Amino acid sequence: MTQPAALGPRYAKGHGTENDFVILDDPDGLLEISAGLVAALCDRQGGLGADGVLRVVRTAAFATDGASPATLAGAVEHPAAAAPATEWFMDYRNADGSIAEMCGNGIRVYARYLLTAGYAASGRLRLGTRAGTREVDIPAQGDISVAMGVPTLLDVQATVVGRPVTAVSLGNPHAVVELDGAADPLAALDLRRPPDIDPVDAFPEGVNVEFVVRCGPGQLALRVHERGVGETRSCGTGVCAAAFALSGGEPGRWTVDVPGGRLQVTLDAAGAMLCGPAVLVATGHIDPTWWEEHA
Amino acid sequence: MTQPAALGPRYAKGHGTENDFVILDDPDGLLEISAGLVAALCDRQGGLGADGVLRVVRTAAFATDGASPATLAGAVEHPAAAAPATEWFMDYRNADGSIAEMCGNGIRVYARYLLTAGYAASGRLRLGTRAGTREVDIPAQGDISVAMGVPTLLDVQATVVGRPVTAVSLGNPHAVVELDGAADPLAALDLRRPPDIDPVDAFPEGVNVEFVVRCGPGQLALRVHERGVGETRSCGTGVCAAAFALSGGEPGRWTVDVPGGRLQVTLDAAGAMLCGPAVLVATGHIDPTWWEEHA
Repeated sequence: MTQPAALGPRYAKGHGTENDFVILDDPDGLLEISAGLVAALCDRQGGLGADGVLRVVRTAAFATDGASPATLAGAVEHPAAAAPATEWFMDYRNADGSIAEMCGNGIRVYARYLLTAGYAASGRLRLGTRAGTREVDIPAQGDISVAMGVPTLLDVQATVVGRPVTAVSLGNPHAVVELDGAADPLAALDLRRPPDIDPVDAFPEGVNVEFVVRCGPGQLALRVHERGVGETRSCGTGVCAAAFALSGGEPGRWTVDVPGGRLQVTLDAAGAMLCGPAVLVATGHIDPTWWEEHA
Repeated sequence: MTQPAALGPRYAKGHGTENDFVILDDPDGLLEISAGLVAALCDRQGGLGADGVLRVVRTAAFATDGASPATLAGAVEHPAAAAPATEWFMDYRNADGSIAEMCGNGIRVYARYLLTAGYAASGRLRLGTRAGTREVDIPAQGDISVAMGVPTLLDVQATVVGRPVTAVSLGNPHAVVELDGAADPLAALDLRRPPDIDPVDAFPEGVNVEFVVRCGPGQLALRVHERGVGETRSCGTGVCAAAFALSGGEPGRWTVDVPGGRLQVTLDAAGAMLCGPAVLVATGHIDPTWWEEHA
């Protein structure tokens, strides 16, 4: 009999309303994570499969690790500068290996992992992201909330499928397109390719596109195409952007149905609060041979 | 700080030419696996994501466990009867929770897991499946081979996309459709839905459909739609069925390119031998809360 092989990096798989993630447990910032490795991890047949990767790293470790920022294609500033006085930093990558500033479902799954792994206790916690510090509320059980910051309108004039978009920033850019609620216009959408935006250079750094239908007072349904990923079953920043775009600037509470489940958005002077389920499916270790071949 | 949670069932994720599997490590046959649980595990966003589940169980444990067969919707005979004198049984389920007799990529990944977990040594090994006993050859490193048994022609007359099929059994049924090699007819196929078979009741228990193009002497390329799964990036029994259908009954060696990689098939009087990569990506434990909610 052979001996079991040595273990590779520790990981978990989880999702928030079926927006799913590979979590890499790297508190001391020891892992080198290339864009190619992220893409291989997120490959749904050849890897673990996910919409993105969440690296769980201490902000201080990220700050003092000279190697890590160099591996971040497109990183223009040091992540720690965006999140002073936080213990944990959410190093988030899209499925194609590109970097994203923030992910509203990802940070809730990240918080669930901190709790489950014993890295944090339940209660309120401030986490670092490339979009700045975000506060999460982690009950011992049940839904996890995150303060997503203050949505802002972007000065962009553009159309998608002939309809004007409302351009919103939640740290990352969104184009919200309201569709007529008759029949089921969401079901008819083909989101296998990125939606055509007119003019094509309206969002030079790319954009997430949300197609939204009003279902009732304070109730929305949407589908989303995420830049660098494709259609996902949910997008936390997109859900907040959609509620903000349709709110007319008024405070209130919104229930938003996405293909992967239901989220709640509360809009007030403090910004957007996103609340919903955050689920861990499994934890384990990447196979060391696989890791070496893809690193 | 909270303590890390208790661990759920042990599992691994692996693939053979990107035909991917969740492996459940259950040597003593203690797990209850409903069709719904299999479907949840194979869900690519809400679960772990796979084309199917391979339960690693000792044949003897399966044989003496009265509970397990009762959970197998559609099981008509006791699996152990199909595989006397084997230590390990491959309890294979499709992504929709249905049972399949055999899986040529799955059994090679299963063998890789036995080696990596320390359940078996490298060399030749006889494994139980619902299609009978299969012999695998597991080198310490490199590609894994499996003797797939003797392909047989089925007495079925049918057409797919207007072309006659060659109906072949490898323990499970296949409809092989040869396409004209001009241009790239495989790229033009839409396999998001099951191919229409005429007559519709030609294969009353369903069928895997392989669309095949000859690329040169002993060389094929194919795409496959698996019953109960949809299009997959590879299908081991389908690759053998395709080589057999195009061989005209002659012995020989075939190289078969599938969307997920390359496999070798050797046809001789002993039957079809399938050889190719079998990769483990990660090992770990299912989250116990998730398991309880889906069991």
